[in-house]
Amino acid sequence: MTSTSTLPRTIGATIASPPSSILIESVLPQIDGGRYPVKREVGDVLHVTADIFREGHEHLAAVLKVRDWQSSDWDEFEMTRIDNDRWGASVSLDRNTRLVYAIEAFPDRYGTWTDEIAKKLAAGLDVASEILEGRQILDEIVGRAGGDAADLIEALDRSEAAGSQADAVEALLTTNVVAVVGRHRSRAGKAVYPVELTVIVDRVAARYAAWYSMFPRSAGTVPGQGATFRDVIDQLPRVQAMGFDVLYFTPIHPIGTTNRKGKNNTLNAKPEDPGVPYAIGSDAGGHDAINPSLGTEDDFRELIRQAAAHGIEIAMDLAIQASPDHPWAKDHPEWFFIRPDGTIKYAENPPKKYQDIYPVNFQNADWESLWHEMKRIMLVWIDWGVKTIRVDNPHTKPTAFWEWLITEIHRDHPDVIFLSEAFTRPKVMKALAKVGFAQSYTYFTWRNFKREITDYLIELTATDVKEYLRGNFFTNTHDILPYVLQEGGRPAFKIRLVLAATLSSVYGIYSGYELCENTPVPGKEEYLNSEKYEFKVWDWDRPGNIVEYVTAINRIRREHPALHEYDNLRFHDAADETILCYSKSTPDHADTVVMIVNLDPFQPHETVIVLPIGEWGIGDGEQYRATDLLSGETFMWTGARQTVFLDPRQEPAMMLSIQRWAHVEFTEPCF
Amino acid sequence: MTSTSTLPRTIGATIASPPSSILIESVLPQIDGGRYPVKREVGDVLHVTADIFREGHEHLAAVLKVRDWQSSDWDEFEMTRIDNDRWGASVSLDRNTRLVYAIEAFPDRYGTWTDEIAKKLAAGLDVASEILEGRQILDEIVGRAGGDAADLIEALDRSEAAGSQADAVEALLTTNVVAVVGRHRSRAGKAVYPVELTVIVDRVAARYAAWYSMFPRSAGTVPGQGATFRDVIDQLPRVQAMGFDVLYFTPIHPIGTTNRKGKNNTLNAKPEDPGVPYAIGSDAGGHDAINPSLGTEDDFRELIRQAAAHGIEIAMDLAIQASPDHPWAKDHPEWFFIRPDGTIKYAENPPKKYQDIYPVNFQNADWESLWHEMKRIMLVWIDWGVKTIRVDNPHTKPTAFWEWLITEIHRDHPDVIFLSEAFTRPKVMKALAKVGFAQSYTYFTWRNFKREITDYLIELTATDVKEYLRGNFFTNTHDILPYVLQEGGRPAFKIRLVLAATLSSVYGIYSGYELCENTPVPGKEEYLNSEKYEFKVWDWDRPGNIVEYVTAINRIRREHPALHEYDNLRFHDAADETILCYSKSTPDHADTVVMIVNLDPFQPHETVIVLPIGEWGIGDGEQYRATDLLSGETFMWTGARQTVFLDPRQEPAMMLSIQRWAHVEFTEPCF
Repeated sequence: MTSTSTLPRTIGATIASPPSSILIESVLPQIDGGRYPVKREVGDVLHVTADIFREGHEHLAAVLKVRDWQSSDWDEFEMTRIDNDRWGASVSLDRNTRLVYAIEAFPDRYGTWTDEIAKKLAAGLDVASEILEGRQILDEIVGRAGGDAADLIEALDRSEAAGSQADAVEALLTTNVVAVVGRHRSRAGKAVYPVELTVIVDRVAARYAAWYSMFPRSAGTVPGQGATFRDVIDQLPRVQAMGFDVLYFTPIHPIGTTNRKGKNNTLNAKPEDPGVPYAIGSDAGGHDAINPSLGTEDDFRELIRQAAAHGIEIAMDLAIQASPDHPWAKDHPEWFFIRPDGTIKYAENPPKKYQDIYPVNFQNADWESLWHEMKRIMLVWIDWGVKTIRVDNPHTKPTAFWEWLITEIHRDHPDVIFLSEAFTRPKVMKALAKVGFAQSYTYFTWRNFKREITDYLIELTATDVKEYLRGNFFTNTHDILPYVLQEGGRPAFKIRLVLAATLSSVYGIYSGYELCENTPVPGKEEYLNSEKYEFKVWDWDRPGNIVEYVTAINRIRREHPALHEYDNLRFHDAADETILCYSKSTPDHADTVVMIVNLDPFQPHETVIVLPIGEWGIGDGEQYRATDLLSGETFMWTGARQTVFLDPRQEPAMMLSIQRWAHVEFTEPCF
Repeated sequence: MTSTSTLPRTIGATIASPPSSILIESVLPQIDGGRYPVKREVGDVLHVTADIFREGHEHLAAVLKVRDWQSSDWDEFEMTRIDNDRWGASVSLDRNTRLVYAIEAFPDRYGTWTDEIAKKLAAGLDVASEILEGRQILDEIVGRAGGDAADLIEALDRSEAAGSQADAVEALLTTNVVAVVGRHRSRAGKAVYPVELTVIVDRVAARYAAWYSMFPRSAGTVPGQGATFRDVIDQLPRVQAMGFDVLYFTPIHPIGTTNRKGKNNTLNAKPEDPGVPYAIGSDAGGHDAINPSLGTEDDFRELIRQAAAHGIEIAMDLAIQASPDHPWAKDHPEWFFIRPDGTIKYAENPPKKYQDIYPVNFQNADWESLWHEMKRIMLVWIDWGVKTIRVDNPHTKPTAFWEWLITEIHRDHPDVIFLSEAFTRPKVMKALAKVGFAQSYTYFTWRNFKREITDYLIELTATDVKEYLRGNFFTNTHDILPYVLQEGGRPAFKIRLVLAATLSSVYGIYSGYELCENTPVPGKEEYLNSEKYEFKVWDWDRPGNIVEYVTAINRIRREHPALHEYDNLRFHDAADETILCYSKSTPDHADTVVMIVNLDPFQPHETVIVLPIGEWGIGDGEQYRATDLLSGETFMWTGARQTVFLDPRQEPAMMLSIQRWAHVEFTEPCF
């Protein structure tokens, strides 16, 4: 893009034909003028639309061109007119890759002629001259029609031999001629949309998955002792039984000892304190090494294999920072921020200090070697069998780096999913999604009230944000114990779980959620005695747990394809300000699930909801079934308006499967 | 723009520094990614805003760069943060030209340091290392600070000699140092928005004018005889008295005789029939010639001078087509559509035929010479003194041609205003506005009901259409006598006049409107005995005329600056579906005019309107004056809700000037 596009064209003596008269505008989908790719998943259909028009009345034709991003071979799909100069075409996306799409439009001279001569014949006008024009058009095509030329020549001969103008025209308008013309039409005068657009076709797990997040060292049973990957393997049946697809680990690399943090982030660690997994690197290695206390590389490969056998994939955590003991600190001090006295700066957010962590300086003079080192590490992880990577604090590294890294990785590994763990200003979060992160953490964790949930979800799923950002909704993380869970207790855990798992098609919990663990550092959204700083052992059957509820929700998600989609969310009226009503439905409405959630964890509420039954093909006076997938209860309802009652101490939410009552019409005897 | 922008960057060995971390997005105003210019007028302020951000916490600075489109010298305006990563800057537009604007953003290293050290000092931390960093930043600037270097060196010396860290910091933070740093700051790591955008700064008449349209040959007094430019000069006082600024003529060129049309578009003209002015060209010349029956070129120049003396400018009509007798038909037959038998095609819209007109073929092989001929003709007209050109049917010629022609003309003549007379599909009309037409005919002529007027005007004035399309609202044209005028009679003429003159800041009538002329060809929106085909003589004092009403409306427009603006239109609630209520207000609300129009020309209506008095600075319980500028009546009102009654047989509309009641506070004796 340059300024010359807004300046006048000068007419060059070498230009043989005038600039194309055809305009191609407002091509959708596209993000920021095509600067960034849009996202879809395997199995989707990409609908591309555009305004395509020119002056006057001449007919046009247009094609959508599609190629793999690493190929130069275009496929073409005929675009058809939708209405008022809007055209469209659709492409089935059946492969995990990136596709480039472009639009080309050109005059349809034969179509224009066909239309004109039909009008003139209908008006009884003499069309001798027009017949000659039609023959000129076909003559021009004969030259490049190859094996089809004979058909055209035969039509031209028939036209010339015809006894009437009507017959002479008819010979030029046969189905056969139309087909040949279509195959060999001229593209003279064509216009090409000036931007080639890109769609990332991710695998389905980018859109639909349930994440379970844990510290692998907490998988054991011996208090005060760190677990190993073998202990994690023992946990796989439990995670599978709850219905999770992705098991995410905090960093598994060697942990530094210099300035190691003790329990509850204290400065003086005791010898037995294991350190924070984010203080990456020690004599045992850095980001491409595994903490020996967790096991060996072979153990980790075995864990990945075992997980796969349980239908679970392992997600790793990429935190680009180093402990003072990381090999980088010796081998590449230039990658860090250097003080005037020559020492490396530790991380700080004045007045806070993180003496156990060195941040990386992406502006350093040897930035290229740093970028390539990160790519090399990704390839090591991929070789271990990892296909999903949660990136810690990506918003403190340049978006240009992420764009490069993700694109480089996708060249050979399009199945790798990157999740952006950015909690920062909205535009920065969006920029990270635009440059290639498949999924993003969101503000969901802090959106508790009806209006703020509705506004935010509409922004995410019903504006162009949906084209590039997939929100992975976390109820909690190892860094965040939201106040609603601290205050609202078990009912709040159920409420936030239903919301996360049904507002988005991809969601996650951090382990302990199923136990309703909610002891905070007083006054903060942090866990007391956090696993970040110590070895933990959990009683996974602890009284008061909601394991059954988690299991039910994940089962319902699997059984209902409407819940596998992201942007099919619709909100519905509910009179009470604490009751949120929304639905998801498949395009054919064969599967429709309505969620009704009491957002108040303390008090029961009753309200009238209004469902868009007409959109689902249910008549105003028609009875239909609403089966609560959580309680198993079935209601026979008629009409859009229904009254619901939700007591958070019993069931704070309903997930209603809506089904038309099969109507049997006795037009034939059935016995 | 190429596909590579969506493909990964490869890191070149020659790149010394990493890609800029700064993102510049969503720059406004812009049209279609900067492909087309936006429009403003002399006296406006251009507000440019953008999302500007990067990863992390570093401070940024940004400048808006502006240059004349024919210069390479940039002016720079500091952008300031608005909120949440949005930045803005404003530029006063004081010259009729085109301006190119661009955005550049870069790290503010000194600002980042200032912020960090303030936090650390406040926390009582040791800042020895940070002081050294601050000195490094200033040292780097010394090298290019020229005459300012001494100030920095002095500050550095003071800092080094300081007795405490606080004093050492203070020396680096003086107002003087801040000023020098601001003048010589580094732009290392800068990002440049990839598109240079353009704004056309038209003269004010592009936005604010009242047009009067006429056939110059109808300016006379002798029935059956054509008038001359001298007769038109006699009409100037009348046109001026009514308050019009622009006097537009149908084509004034020689008219062909071949297949000349007679009265009411009949095929066999009589010898005395003058022909249609759009059948341009004869032995007497073409588009650069003047119909001898109107006068000479000198007469036309004299008319332009006389008009200017009456505060009126003359607008010409550009119809790119030719009669069979046009010199082009002999000299450039290749510019036309050629039949297979070698003859030139006349215009047709099957089954309609226009045998007196040859359309021009813009796709012809010698298209370049045609484009240049049109430019030459424009320069002839400009030499005559013409600065406003209404273009007939621009939508049948390529937009690429208009973009080139208008841009070429604007190089030396930025004051030339082109009006697009396109009545066609919406996207084509918008495309013509985008490529440079200063004004556009609109669908206003056919929008009669409240909902359709409101929807259309919101699209025109409150969406991004307002950035490039200025609707010139015509009540009627020599081609269009709308049904509402045929049916609604005199009240309808008043209603449509008020709407045209106040919904848009630029509007026009076709002569005869002020006489309420409304005799149609039965069943059509065309004038019976149209001036297009015959000589006419008018009685400008004909009984039943609305000359006084026209005069009043144009006077009120002049007196009220709120009515000079285009996109300050706001609609207000009115309960009755036939009453339209809207207002225009200056930014400071010193001038506010409320229009209340009964859209029903047959029946009186009464309704409650709701005015946004709070926005105008009027309190809920405060009395204010509403003076009807049409009737002269004044109302003392309190509150937003008022009842109005409008009888179309008396006054179908009110134009209320809203004024706060001057409140005198006796804080001092006034006698």
